[in-house]
Parts: sequence; structure tokens; C-alpha cells
Amino acid sequence: MANRIFAIMIVLKNTAKKIGVKQMKFIHTADWHLGKLVHGVYMTENQREVLEQFVTVVAEEKPDAVVIAGDLYDRSVPPTDAVELLDEMLFKINVELKTPVVAIAGNHDSAERLSFGSSWYKHSQFYLSGKLTNSFNPVQINGVNFYLVPYAEPGVVRQLLEDDSIHSHQDAMKTLIGKMEESLNPHEPNVLVGHAFVLGGQTSDSERVLSVGGSGCVGAELFEPFSYTALGHLHSPDAIYHSKVKYSGSLLKYSFSEAKQRKSISIIEMDEKGEFTHRYRSLTPKHDMRELEGHLEELLDPHFYEKERIDDYLKITLLDEGALIDPINKLRQVYPNVLHLERKMDITDLKKKQSFNSIRSEKKSEIELFEQFYTEMTTAEFTQDKKEAMATVIEKVLREEGLK
Amino acid sequence: MANRIFAIMIVLKNTAKKIGVKQMKFIHTADWHLGKLVHGVYMTENQREVLEQFVTVVAEEKPDAVVIAGDLYDRSVPPTDAVELLDEMLFKINVELKTPVVAIAGNHDSAERLSFGSSWYKHSQFYLSGKLTNSFNPVQINGVNFYLVPYAEPGVVRQLLEDDSIHSHQDAMKTLIGKMEESLNPHEPNVLVGHAFVLGGQTSDSERVLSVGGSGCVGAELFEPFSYTALGHLHSPDAIYHSKVKYSGSLLKYSFSEAKQRKSISIIEMDEKGEFTHRYRSLTPKHDMRELEGHLEELLDPHFYEKERIDDYLKITLLDEGALIDPINKLRQVYPNVLHLERKMDITDLKKKQSFNSIRSEKKSEIELFEQFYTEMTTAEFTQDKKEAMATVIEKVLREEGLK
Repeated sequence: MANRIFAIMIVLKNTAKKIGVKQMKFIHTADWHLGKLVHGVYMTENQREVLEQFVTVVAEEKPDAVVIAGDLYDRSVPPTDAVELLDEMLFKINVELKTPVVAIAGNHDSAERLSFGSSWYKHSQFYLSGKLTNSFNPVQINGVNFYLVPYAEPGVVRQLLEDDSIHSHQDAMKTLIGKMEESLNPHEPNVLVGHAFVLGGQTSDSERVLSVGGSGCVGAELFEPFSYTALGHLHSPDAIYHSKVKYSGSLLKYSFSEAKQRKSISIIEMDEKGEFTHRYRSLTPKHDMRELEGHLEELLDPHFYEKERIDDYLKITLLDEGALIDPINKLRQVYPNVLHLERKMDITDLKKKQSFNSIRSEKKSEIELFEQFYTEMTTAEFTQDKKEAMATVIEKVLREEGLK
Repeated sequence: MANRIFAIMIVLKNTAKKIGVKQMKFIHTADWHLGKLVHGVYMTENQREVLEQFVTVVAEEKPDAVVIAGDLYDRSVPPTDAVELLDEMLFKINVELKTPVVAIAGNHDSAERLSFGSSWYKHSQFYLSGKLTNSFNPVQINGVNFYLVPYAEPGVVRQLLEDDSIHSHQDAMKTLIGKMEESLNPHEPNVLVGHAFVLGGQTSDSERVLSVGGSGCVGAELFEPFSYTALGHLHSPDAIYHSKVKYSGSLLKYSFSEAKQRKSISIIEMDEKGEFTHRYRSLTPKHDMRELEGHLEELLDPHFYEKERIDDYLKITLLDEGALIDPINKLRQVYPNVLHLERKMDITDLKKKQSFNSIRSEKKSEIELFEQFYTEMTTAEFTQDKKEAMATVIEKVLREEGLK
């Protein structure tokens, strides 16, 4: 069976060659956010590891280009080890593996700083567009035209194009694409590389559409002239469902809100008419980012954690009621990379909370009331030190208010 | 006469060609300090202008290389317009004028940030060494070997070379040069490009030697193996008088202590034995930096200032005694770029100052005493507002000290 499929594939490939259909393959990635700090922890080592996997994928896939759709760095002045990491990885991809690279600045990058040296990079087909210019000529690689649109605020585009009618990202993108269309040949494969908040198509999460609306968004319909639009900005590859306008998603999970997102890179193979196939390849970080929920005792039980990847980056939600003594340090002895700890109130707790105002009638002292509040709201112990400090404050307030 | 000299020159040049003496010409510059802020004023526009002159000199001289001996930027994270300026100027020199460039990081540059992309620059003979490595192979341009030694702290060199005996800059440079000597061919022209505080030879200013001594300095004798040592760090080309070890001096005057220094670039023509001629070419900034001294009235007199270059960057020293009403704003109406204003006390003033402690016997009130002090020490008026504010302070202090 496998042999027959293989034989058919070869026939198809040869037919394609005979009728002159040229295939161009590129990898679409974005939002590397090198130098990112998550809950106080630098992601650089995790990023290095995943980028090394990425380089291996490039070596295997042998694409005609790698497209990076913005936010290479997490901020305009990234830490120096992030600068060194980007330099090293791009060198491996572009110079050692001789793969053309097409990259744009995102809103997290500094257009000017990222641009430095880009004139020299072109020598080896590394096309880096940091700052938007009013030249709308595409970069041509193996018959595909890549139109590069680095992130720019509407005001910057208004000034650059001397067009006072530009007020929103939608206006800006529409005008920019209009300029491109003046010379774009619709019979060729054209790819736009952009970094924007694009809505439209069958968007996955309808609530999001309602909540984000306004001038920050760009309608997917604007990208109609292009065979494929390679986007960066939103971190999930599922942020938009559209046949031709796609996010690759970020390199890694960069917040616990992304804990359930899949992370991948996109591999596109495009023919000379701009028709393409699209598939995902995933990269596996050494430390995943995920959420864990349970009672403290359960989480600290070897029977439980033996089955867990204990060194993942974790947000732990404790279900325990009442006071717990130093849970964060106890958890870190088992799970070294706990980044965030929360406590969840169950219904009983909520009821307690709702009846909080009526508690005074129980004739508890102020300090007893505060202790109850503290243990319900935090995961730390209400120590004797804290008790004394609080007692002083209560005493002072009561006296100042004339209640004592 | 001129014709005869010209004829002789041609004969000499042809003779040199016949006997096979190859000449290599390079320009030595350093300490551009792009993004420098002097007394609150960005020098970027002045730097742009002088660098444009520099590019013109490169176009005229047609050197085989331009050597920049560190401190391209003034700080590790320079302002973005300085980043754009460096990018633009290096592109003109290296790509448009096709001139090889050899550059190292100085103590003001960030080794890692400056290094980004340097692997790509080599394509077009732009050799940028930001971070010291343990590869001591020279860059070869037209028969001359350039050994690049970017600035590094002794601790960094100690770690890099795994040599615990390195404690000072002297130790570090000695060890580095020792490594280079292992493969250096003394019969070839060898140039070291470094950024250091080098002393030795006939140093111009003996006081300086005494005052700076210690671990920050490097002895000029270390550079003996090299035909020429192109230095950066000290801002005057006269910082050292040595036949083979030279500073080019900074691009511009960067403080009033440099007001009387000449600023230039060095042009070196070297034969294949390492023998060289050395000459200076000066660049003329639109705004010079200089000091001006006089009485306020005189400086504001059109007969005086008509002969002055009023838009230079100025440090003005006023010789007036007593109170002056808002002299800085009056001066700026004539001299828009006054960066610093001082008042000089003559002997009478000094006597007044010395007898300051005895003034109390004159039975002046505290506020009168302060007013006298204020007008002697500053160039501003002691306004009614200031008087009232000060009176409140004096009142408070006297009361607290129980003197009232």
C-alpha cells in the first residue's frame, strides 16, 4: 500500500515537473520574543533549546526561505544574551544552512536597532525589514514575491505616506496594500509578511472579537490580493481560521493564558500560481508551561508527582481551605519551576466571603477578623510577627477614628 | 617648480613599483562616541556633519582600509538616531565606496550589541570585532596584517585565556600580544588595533602620568612587535609621542577640557616591510567647542561678538563682580549654544571669601548674609521669591536650634 502511494507521489511530482509547476517551500514562524522574562524567569535558555530544534527542522526540510513575522526580541533593548542568541541562530540558518531569511520587526522590536546592518545581510539573502519605508518592492525568492510590512503605528504610516486620512491600523494597512497593488502581478505567487492584530474569517473565539474591537484591528479581507499572508502578533496558530491569512503562533508559551495553546511552525509549499499546501511541525521545549491544580498534600505526594514532568514551568492552584505553612517553598522542593501560586476558593469559601460583612456580629476581635481574612486570601502563614505588626496598625486606626 | 616636484614624485613612484615596494594606505580614526550628550546637548547632528566630511576624505584618499579603534558609540545602548547614523556612514564607506573597514569595540561600546551581525559584514570586508575571542588570527588587507584587540576588562581576559596571573590591563595586553607573537611574522607589516590607556614614549603631559598611574595603564613598549599600533581611548592625537604607537584622537571635542586639542584623523601609508609615513587631516565641525572669558557687558557688545563664531558650543566665564540679572539668558540671545557658565573670582573676591567667616561681626542679618553669599557664588539673581523661601528656612532653623 505504502509503495503504491509512494509510486503515485512520484508520478504526480514528475507530472508537475513536466507541466512546469515549480514548487517553493518556506517556513513561517513569528513571535520568538527573545529575552522574554516570564514571572521573573528569563526564557533565554528555553528559547535556545527550541531554536536549536528549529535549526534542525530547517536542515531537514531544506526550505527555500524562512519567514519570521516580527517580535524577534521581546523588547527594544533586549538583554545581551538574547542578542547573541539571535545572531547565532540566524547565522546558522542563513549562512551555514544557506537558507534565505525574510524577517520584519514587530511591535516589541525596536525598528531602528533591529535594522542596523541590514544592508549587509542582503548579500547572503537575509532580508530584514526593521523600519517601514515607502518602497513597496517585494523580495523575490524562487519565484515568490514577499511583501514585507514591519509593524508601524498608524501615525508613523500617516507621516511616511503623507496621507492624513490614516488614523487606525486598518487605514494604514489598507493604504499600504493599495500601494503594493499598484505594481503587484496577481498571476504570480505573492506573500505578505506582517505583524498585526487581524480579525476575520472564522475566528475561533467570538468573545475575543467583541472585547478587542476598535482601531487596533485589521480586517482579514484586506489581504485578499495575496496568495498567503504570514502573520505575527497573536501567539496562537488558531487565532484566526482563514484559508489564506494565518498566524504561525509564537515559538514558546509565554504566559499561562497560553498554557493550553499548541505551539508550532508552519510549512508552506506554494506553486507558481500561488496555490499552496500548509502543514504544522511542532517544537518541544524542555520545560513546558502548564497549570496544575490540587491539594497541597496530594501535590507533594510522590505517587502523584512521580508521573509529572516536575521541572515544567508551573502555575499551581491550591484547593486547600484554611491556613497553610509556607506552601510555595514546600512545592518548590518538588517542582523547582513554580512560577505562580494561587488558591482557589470553593463554594463554601465563597459563602464565607459573602457573609464577611456579617461576621462582625460574631463579636470577633479586629485581629481575629484580620487573621481569618489573611488566611483565606493568601497562601502564607499569619505568623506571630505579622500578628504583632497588624495589632499595632489596628490599634492606631481605632485610636485615630476615635473608636478606642 | 611644482611641475618638477610632480615629475620627481612620478619617478619615485615608478622606481618603487620596479623594485616591488607595495604601498598600503589606511586611515586611522577612533572615539566617534556617537550619541554623546555634552552638557545636556546631543552631538548627533554635529557628528553627522563631521562624518560626512570623513566620508568625503575617504572618497578622496581612496585608502585600502579605514581603521576605527573603538568607542564607535558613547554608550552600550545608544539613542536610535546614533544607531542609524553609524549604519548609514559605515554603509557609505564600506559598501558605496568599497573600502574595507576594520573596527573594534571600545569601553563605551557594548561588545555583544555591537557584534550583532558581524559575521555577515565580512562578506564586504567589514571586519568588526566587538567581543574579544581567543582566536588571534589577523585580518589581512593588501598585505598588511591587522590584529584586532577590542576593549576587555582584565577579568574577562583572565577568564577567556584561563590565566590566573592576569590582574591588570598591562598583564592582559602582554598576554594577548604574547599569543599573537606565536604566529606573527615579523618580516610582514603588522598593525595592532587597540583601545587602551597607553603610556610611554615621550608623553606630552608629565602630570597626567603621575595622576593616572596604576592598573588602568598599558606600557607602550608592549607594542614593539608591531609596525604600527592604532589606538583609541585618549581623545588627543598628542596623548602620546611615540614613533609607532599612536592615538588618532576623537572625532570631535567632547568636553571643554578638550577645547584646545586639535582633532584630526591619521593617514598612514605603509610599505611591505612595515615602514610607514604618517600625516594628519583635520575635519571641521560646524560648531567648535571653546571657552570664552570676559565681562557680561563686553560679551554682549556687538563690536565684540560680530567677530566671534557665535554659534559654537561655549563655556563662558564671566569676570564680573557682584550680582548679575539672569546672565545666562542674556548670553544665549547672542550665543545660542552656551553649554556652561561660570564666574571667576578675582583676588578681591577671594579675599571676601576668605573673610567670610568674620562677616558675622558686621552684624548683618542671616538673610542679608545669604544674599551676599548667593550673589557671589552664582550667576542668578536673588529674587524676591527666593528671598522669601530662604527666609522661611532660616526662620525654621533658628527656631529649631533655639536661637530665636
